[in-house]
Amino acid sequence: MIYQQISYETLLEFTKSVFLQMDCSIHDADLASKVLVAADLRGIDSHGVARLSGYIRLWEAGRINTTPNIRIIHETPSTAVVDGDAGLGLVVAPYAMKIAIEKAHQVGTGWVSVQNSNHFGIAGYHAMMALEHDMIGMAMTNASALVAPTFSTEKMLGTNPIAVSIPAGEEPPFVADFATTTAANGKLELLQKKNSDAPLGWVQDEFGMGSVDANILKKGGSLLPLGSDREHGSHKGYALGSIVDIFSAVLSGASYGPWAPPFPAYVPMPENMPGKGLGHFLGAMRIDAFRPASDFKMHMDNWIKRFRAAKTSEGHEHVLIPGDPERIIAEQRAKEGIPIQDIVVNDLKSIAGKMGLSF
Amino acid sequence: MIYQQISYETLLEFTKSVFLQMDCSIHDADLASKVLVAADLRGIDSHGVARLSGYIRLWEAGRINTTPNIRIIHETPSTAVVDGDAGLGLVVAPYAMKIAIEKAHQVGTGWVSVQNSNHFGIAGYHAMMALEHDMIGMAMTNASALVAPTFSTEKMLGTNPIAVSIPAGEEPPFVADFATTTAANGKLELLQKKNSDAPLGWVQDEFGMGSVDANILKKGGSLLPLGSDREHGSHKGYALGSIVDIFSAVLSGASYGPWAPPFPAYVPMPENMPGKGLGHFLGAMRIDAFRPASDFKMHMDNWIKRFRAAKTSEGHEHVLIPGDPERIIAEQRAKEGIPIQDIVVNDLKSIAGKMGLSF
Repeated sequence: MIYQQISYETLLEFTKSVFLQMDCSIHDADLASKVLVAADLRGIDSHGVARLSGYIRLWEAGRINTTPNIRIIHETPSTAVVDGDAGLGLVVAPYAMKIAIEKAHQVGTGWVSVQNSNHFGIAGYHAMMALEHDMIGMAMTNASALVAPTFSTEKMLGTNPIAVSIPAGEEPPFVADFATTTAANGKLELLQKKNSDAPLGWVQDEFGMGSVDANILKKGGSLLPLGSDREHGSHKGYALGSIVDIFSAVLSGASYGPWAPPFPAYVPMPENMPGKGLGHFLGAMRIDAFRPASDFKMHMDNWIKRFRAAKTSEGHEHVLIPGDPERIIAEQRAKEGIPIQDIVVNDLKSIAGKMGLSF
Repeated sequence: MIYQQISYETLLEFTKSVFLQMDCSIHDADLASKVLVAADLRGIDSHGVARLSGYIRLWEAGRINTTPNIRIIHETPSTAVVDGDAGLGLVVAPYAMKIAIEKAHQVGTGWVSVQNSNHFGIAGYHAMMALEHDMIGMAMTNASALVAPTFSTEKMLGTNPIAVSIPAGEEPPFVADFATTTAANGKLELLQKKNSDAPLGWVQDEFGMGSVDANILKKGGSLLPLGSDREHGSHKGYALGSIVDIFSAVLSGASYGPWAPPFPAYVPMPENMPGKGLGHFLGAMRIDAFRPASDFKMHMDNWIKRFRAAKTSEGHEHVLIPGDPERIIAEQRAKEGIPIQDIVVNDLKSIAGKMGLSF
């Protein structure tokens, strides 16, 4: 694959101008572009500008409302349900996370379940919003069904990611952000583009047999839950993905399981949807609702240093802390620019042409 | 292995009489025995009466205080930190869960981190306490270090389980309860007793190479995080186990990571422990803090029925819902008695002899 090195600022400005063309307010265009391009910056290329045309197609199909009336429809001191009014998840999720943070300021923790939303970019962005408030942040979302439960051959769950961010002191924060599948769909798409096989344990065929065909999802196959098979704990990955689905969608009144609205605009909406749009679940816990933040951060530094210094197996210099790989890539890409695949560059150029923008 | 069929009531009464002999109050002996024998009833044999002698040895070593002053040392409307005063985790965890439930009644959710505790039995018991209140329950705990992070050869984390219980309507509740490793240590112990090999992906040797030796933990090896290896997502299992460790122990002021106190009383306590005892994290979310409980339960029934009816791979009649296997075993064992291995029966007889009880 051929890449072009493009600066973070260039990508951000272009993405913002696209969202403005989609009738987003300046505030929303600014926010949505920051969330989207954070994925490219942090090395999660599948969730960044590569998806911009997908969002546009959903907007053209009338499935995304770029002037939404996002609002709280139910709340208690520590909880809320937000109706995203079919808005961009990139805007709805930060709105909901702000409510979670505000509630955590008030009563120690805040938990917001969201209905009627769309794809929200990388979960890590929203979870990390809590860090500057000395809070632990959490974000999860359901998604188009691509994953078969243990013993099943049917796509019932999305890759349903979980992100948890935890502040530290001198050390960088602990930031876990992962799909509840063995491999994220983005990694599979990368293999498809390279015409490479997938490792056994990532996908299965239409009969539930393990497969190495990276294109098997188009042939009735499915992604496998974290754990790959029953003997290696796939029932745990299936349970995790289910918990994300239930917290995000059943708790909020969004559409769940196999009825989650698909991201590709050409895929018809499921029939008899039991709720509205996609669902998210966002949480914030104030550290000093448990112990003084300075104590906690000192112990987190100790935790991180001890784990980083754990004995390694051959070929590995040190043990990584969740968030290390993304942070290292982000520092490098902020300096050197972000490598964007030619196919994505062409996609962005075609968007620019269609919208009368320059790229 | 040879088993004896023993009734739930017999096991419960005997266990209670043992805890009374350990100077527990009647209330605590009653509660601790219910929590412990719930493991045998639900088929998680490694966490039931098979561990009773282990608890006694910890008590004899002065590491368990059977007349603890369990108390809240910090709180906000939605959070608390509990000091277990070195009590039995079997008693401390339900105390903390009750506080979480009470806070959820008040402000929508309740979150309690616990320091200075001991092994708390099965996580599922505590999470399920929320169900009768129409709440979602959560329970996690850190534990003796047996698990190596991705790229490491050092035991840094416990098998750190997560339990989440979710109420339904006509359907039985959704109850996930799993170690954040590929296989729980109890499953490995079972293979040790049978002199059988472990599947590749459960454990590694002292050099970090995959192994099938069920006894490898005694030879410098370690359990592997859910996902088994990097290519199959072990960094996700490692992140999950770390989150459990941090929520349970760093947030509460318990001892974390490789410093978690060991369950076997003959293993010396780690030097320079950074906190007190084991840690737990318990949570409760009131359903109607999000949407009316009757709506939610109707949709949970729909969710469960749809997943149970998903297409299956050959040899599987239907897809299981988390909690199905344990519930089916519990119903059977309540009627027919609980099969207890001869080696465990002998252990219980020896406890009875030592304590002047009959078994």
